Amino acid sequence: MTATSPDTSAAAVQILPSFVDGSWWTPQNPEKITDVLDASTGELVSRVSTDGLNTKAAVDYARSAGQRSLSELTFHQRALTLKKLALHLGEHKELLYELSDRTGATRKDHLVDVDGGIGTLFALSSIGRKELPNSNVIIDGNIEQLSRDGSFIGEHIYTRLPGAAVQINAFNFPVWGMLEKFAPSFIAGVPTIVKPATQTAYVTEACVRLMVDSGLLPEGSIQLISGSARDLLDHLDYRDHVAFTGSAQTASILRSHHNVQHEGVRFTAETDSLNAAILGPDATPGTPEFEAFIKAVVAEMTSKAGQKCTAIRRAIVPSQHVDAVVDALRARVESRAVLGDPRDADTTVGALASKDQQAEVTKAVQQLVDAGGEVCFGGPSSFEELKTGTGSADAEAGAFYPVTTLKFTNARTPEVHQVEAFGPVASVLGYSDIDDAVELAALGGGSLVATVATHDPQIAAEFVRGIGSHHGRVHLLDRDDAKTSTGHGSPLPHLVHGGPGRAGGGEELGGMRGVKHYMQRTAIQGTPDLLTGITGVWHQGAKANTATPESIAAGSAVHPFRKPLAELEIGDQLASGLRKVHLEDILEFAESTGDKFYAHTNEEAATANPFFPRRVAHGYLLVAWAAGLFVEAAPGPVLANTGLENLSFMTPVTYDDSIRVTLTAKEITPRETDDYGQVRWDTVLHNQHDELVATYDVLTRVAKEMPDWAE
Amino acid sequence: MTATSPDTSAAAVQILPSFVDGSWWTPQNPEKITDVLDASTGELVSRVSTDGLNTKAAVDYARSAGQRSLSELTFHQRALTLKKLALHLGEHKELLYELSDRTGATRKDHLVDVDGGIGTLFALSSIGRKELPNSNVIIDGNIEQLSRDGSFIGEHIYTRLPGAAVQINAFNFPVWGMLEKFAPSFIAGVPTIVKPATQTAYVTEACVRLMVDSGLLPEGSIQLISGSARDLLDHLDYRDHVAFTGSAQTASILRSHHNVQHEGVRFTAETDSLNAAILGPDATPGTPEFEAFIKAVVAEMTSKAGQKCTAIRRAIVPSQHVDAVVDALRARVESRAVLGDPRDADTTVGALASKDQQAEVTKAVQQLVDAGGEVCFGGPSSFEELKTGTGSADAEAGAFYPVTTLKFTNARTPEVHQVEAFGPVASVLGYSDIDDAVELAALGGGSLVATVATHDPQIAAEFVRGIGSHHGRVHLLDRDDAKTSTGHGSPLPHLVHGGPGRAGGGEELGGMRGVKHYMQRTAIQGTPDLLTGITGVWHQGAKANTATPESIAAGSAVHPFRKPLAELEIGDQLASGLRKVHLEDILEFAESTGDKFYAHTNEEAATANPFFPRRVAHGYLLVAWAAGLFVEAAPGPVLANTGLENLSFMTPVTYDDSIRVTLTAKEITPRETDDYGQVRWDTVLHNQHDELVATYDVLTRVAKEMPDWAE
Repeated sequence: MTATSPDTSAAAVQILPSFVDGSWWTPQNPEKITDVLDASTGELVSRVSTDGLNTKAAVDYARSAGQRSLSELTFHQRALTLKKLALHLGEHKELLYELSDRTGATRKDHLVDVDGGIGTLFALSSIGRKELPNSNVIIDGNIEQLSRDGSFIGEHIYTRLPGAAVQINAFNFPVWGMLEKFAPSFIAGVPTIVKPATQTAYVTEACVRLMVDSGLLPEGSIQLISGSARDLLDHLDYRDHVAFTGSAQTASILRSHHNVQHEGVRFTAETDSLNAAILGPDATPGTPEFEAFIKAVVAEMTSKAGQKCTAIRRAIVPSQHVDAVVDALRARVESRAVLGDPRDADTTVGALASKDQQAEVTKAVQQLVDAGGEVCFGGPSSFEELKTGTGSADAEAGAFYPVTTLKFTNARTPEVHQVEAFGPVASVLGYSDIDDAVELAALGGGSLVATVATHDPQIAAEFVRGIGSHHGRVHLLDRDDAKTSTGHGSPLPHLVHGGPGRAGGGEELGGMRGVKHYMQRTAIQGTPDLLTGITGVWHQGAKANTATPESIAAGSAVHPFRKPLAELEIGDQLASGLRKVHLEDILEFAESTGDKFYAHTNEEAATANPFFPRRVAHGYLLVAWAAGLFVEAAPGPVLANTGLENLSFMTPVTYDDSIRVTLTAKEITPRETDDYGQVRWDTVLHNQHDELVATYDVLTRVAKEMPDWAE
Repeated sequence: MTATSPDTSAAAVQILPSFVDGSWWTPQNPEKITDVLDASTGELVSRVSTDGLNTKAAVDYARSAGQRSLSELTFHQRALTLKKLALHLGEHKELLYELSDRTGATRKDHLVDVDGGIGTLFALSSIGRKELPNSNVIIDGNIEQLSRDGSFIGEHIYTRLPGAAVQINAFNFPVWGMLEKFAPSFIAGVPTIVKPATQTAYVTEACVRLMVDSGLLPEGSIQLISGSARDLLDHLDYRDHVAFTGSAQTASILRSHHNVQHEGVRFTAETDSLNAAILGPDATPGTPEFEAFIKAVVAEMTSKAGQKCTAIRRAIVPSQHVDAVVDALRARVESRAVLGDPRDADTTVGALASKDQQAEVTKAVQQLVDAGGEVCFGGPSSFEELKTGTGSADAEAGAFYPVTTLKFTNARTPEVHQVEAFGPVASVLGYSDIDDAVELAALGGGSLVATVATHDPQIAAEFVRGIGSHHGRVHLLDRDDAKTSTGHGSPLPHLVHGGPGRAGGGEELGGMRGVKHYMQRTAIQGTPDLLTGITGVWHQGAKANTATPESIAAGSAVHPFRKPLAELEIGDQLASGLRKVHLEDILEFAESTGDKFYAHTNEEAATANPFFPRRVAHGYLLVAWAAGLFVEAAPGPVLANTGLENLSFMTPVTYDDSIRVTLTAKEITPRETDDYGQVRWDTVLHNQHDELVATYDVLTRVAKEMPDWAE
């Protein structure tokens, strides 16, 4: 990547467009243009300039049109859009592969970037529809009783941020890096502004173009700034969110911006860190864990030519096994690593992204050597042999770097814990015992991920106790998951990605955790009626539309089970009459179910038990009878009872007590893709003294319309 | 508060000690001493200096001794310590009241600060023991299946931060402000360093002294820096947490510190904001909501003489009711607000904390007046009459300020949304419609809390949709909660406290949310065995110690229900044999329970239902039978089934199918204060084809030792 004035050959390559304020845009008479070259051949691929781009207009457009259009969709509708988008991108991924070849990445690398990005859309689409309500408010946690009479309660809700989700990405994952940030912010309902790294912006641009052209995205929900966006942060404040991925140094600069410091811009960073892989003391040479460890380290050195924030930089191994580890790494690299142009069939390790990156890695390795690192294989001295090149690669013009391993006599050499060679480079360090290994891992100053290779749960526990709080993710590798592990270096949509300290202090992904990063958590306090109105979820104590067996029989009320989703409303309620529990009911239930637990069958032991007055009814009898009291037996829109949550038994029910049930439609979640939805029923059992016997939620599937066979 | 060289009268007052590195400390020959005066009388109360204090030693001591001693306790043990501490402080609270009198606060104010602080200890103690495991690792959310065969799974855990919890507090709540931060960090297991505001540090010192003298706190778990600690942040990094409460300006300065910017210090701020109270369009004069609104605004203006981060600064009311609101506020203030020395019986509004604060408020009110604000009552012009003083107060030397209300013709005057008079001062602004009111509230640039007075759930929903993401808390006030509401200005232990933008962007409290702020969330990936070892919670797929009816009958295994907590281990398992479900079982269950839902009783409708093959067994029958298959009937250590969680039905069971159950001890939570604990049993039902029928957790109480009556 070099900044030049346009020349004749370059003039043929169009300047990469941006997509802002509703349309594609290229600068008219740019003064500064950056030429981007093919990583393997040095050919001109792309020209980048944003001279004259109005970033304030982009922010305003996100806050106005983007916020407005996204507000018209629910979480499920947005999640479903992501699935459609994933299918669309999947149909066109060859285009992205071809462009990605030019970045130096191999086809295997594309699986991580392109397919990984599409997979993240699928995963978040699925998680979003499974775990979120089909509305725009997420309730977080329990309701808190703030007054004794229940008239004043509190709870927490998440609502979307009122601004823009700005993403500033690294060059190494032009597709995944964009999509893994876009997906959660889109589900949250916050419009995105993408700022890719210049070096691979042409791949991101192609992906955003596919997304825009799909017609699936609401107006203003995505914008793209293809190139420098230096003044973007000048227009942001506490309403906006900036998610940065890249170097720790750039993160620090952005974090120092006035608007982050003083105007409350929500800033999160995910920076490359000096991630460790630790070989457990039990994982001696010859064990399956040793082998898995070697494979993991080599995989991380070679995948994306080591240009991953999550790559292993430090192999921390028992001192007595340092040489065995180095030998095993060398053997595996020699037998497997073929550097070259990714378009060549036998290439397994691609080029670095640019000559600049090549120079950076060269410099970093030299720093490590100067600090006392001994090159075991690869490194500067083996650089010459590379220059022969392979296939179509141009060894001079291409940005190749050999797979390199160093070792250090002094494991506490500061540089090995601080200097990152962002390429196929790792260092091997010896440790004396677990405490020592924990200390060494922590010297990285906070990392995205560490691998611990051990088959011993107690050793695993000891390591995680020690290193857990220094890491965003810990990957445990042994003989049982060596084949099924998704790998040290792979962030997953379900798990958080990020880490403390050097790793940026941020957090992304993690299923719905990642969506909540684009939302504000707010405590709300008020009456059950007001909180019901705000959340769309019925709260105990709020107004209800109560049917009783009598009112139903009289025709003046409808049983809630007779109402399809089209008619059912939260607050629709059935209040049963009392049913008396006789001793013989309990004994018969014990007999028929086989549950002859002494509390139900042995008067003496039940009385001795500290929690019961004498023999009591089974909890299972109570919930079964409750169903008997609340169900409407005739075929109707209620299709199935799919579960039961948070069942808590409060007051024991002994024989000659009676119970009654109150069942209230609490939350209605229509499914976007089916003719039914989920209804959550608040269920409360009382005894004849109006004491609380049990509370729980019953989950059912209910048809949107009355089924033919039920009418 | 004035900085002076020590004089003769001052020499009699000892310099306020700090508690660092395990002992009480005062400077030997301090150069700089700050004299602190009684807010009402101007008498010298306290002399503050930390000249020569070694803050690095304090940080090192927290990280070493503090971390070590806290690691020896579980969450429950630490939570229980908080309860004992609360009882101890409660016994000595008169001492704290008497000192607090000197800060200008009234006895009613002390209830907020002293009793509120003690109440927070009680509340977090209770929540901690109820919601956390009795261990040192919190599992966050669900287990994620990362491989099809179940050998590679992932989940999230929280472990405590490895450094110090530094709290930098404001002058207005010297007790509550310290305890509300101490309690969650202590439960998390992170040692605290307290840095109170100089003006009221003598109250905090007295409280910390009571805590230390109680002997309840582990070594190094609390330290106190009584005075300036300018270089404290120089010694912190990503392992440490700084919780700041105070002005937005100071927050900005701290946030700019190199170690926050570049070394990953976890920094959270809670700053005073220009909180709004909005009178809903339905809350016209004469309604109960109007009355409640007036009471709330006056309460917030007068409590702590308006020196609360959460106080109402902006009353946003329908334009046509501005004058009615001002009149009602005036009438209530005139009839209720008596300024004076808090030691005088009739005082209802105390002094500001210092003459400096008095000058600040005077200046801020002048800024508001200069910007167009019209003083409706109070304010500079009524200042003279105050100088008469009441009782023992010295109107000249005391820091009094009259209760003051302004109104603005232009509701968008920037100053009214930006200039904070941190005293008994509020402004009234008119709005045209809900959108306008939302915009005005948002002009505060992010606030801790807003009150909305409305009785209409739809209006409440509209307001929360608009202002929710600009606020940390929204308080809804109407006729039904006016009497029971804990008030606009009161942060509660159960609810988060903090807010975006101007409010600092931080979050404190919120029950266990607040504890997690002192912990690192880490994704862990590995085999069920390794994750079981790390978390101490049994995971499906991990090794189990399986008993069967046959092995129990043969005497080669013990039923897990026969094991008291002293013997029971996670992984202890019972695997039942199959039991066949006959059609008559289903019909009899329908008859006895009354649950004749068509899916169990009507072959035609059940078959037409999209989810069932034909008539199926009740879910309640399945779980009742499962209990029949897993319980051991004889009296034993299992005391009660207290609940059931996350029951999910997967495969329907029709007649002539069979079911079997596998019950495994998943989590064991001994109670610190009882002779029993909770055992969570992982419960899985399979059918005769080994298909999953249902999964759930059964919650039981189990005795620590075999009860006498059961042996």
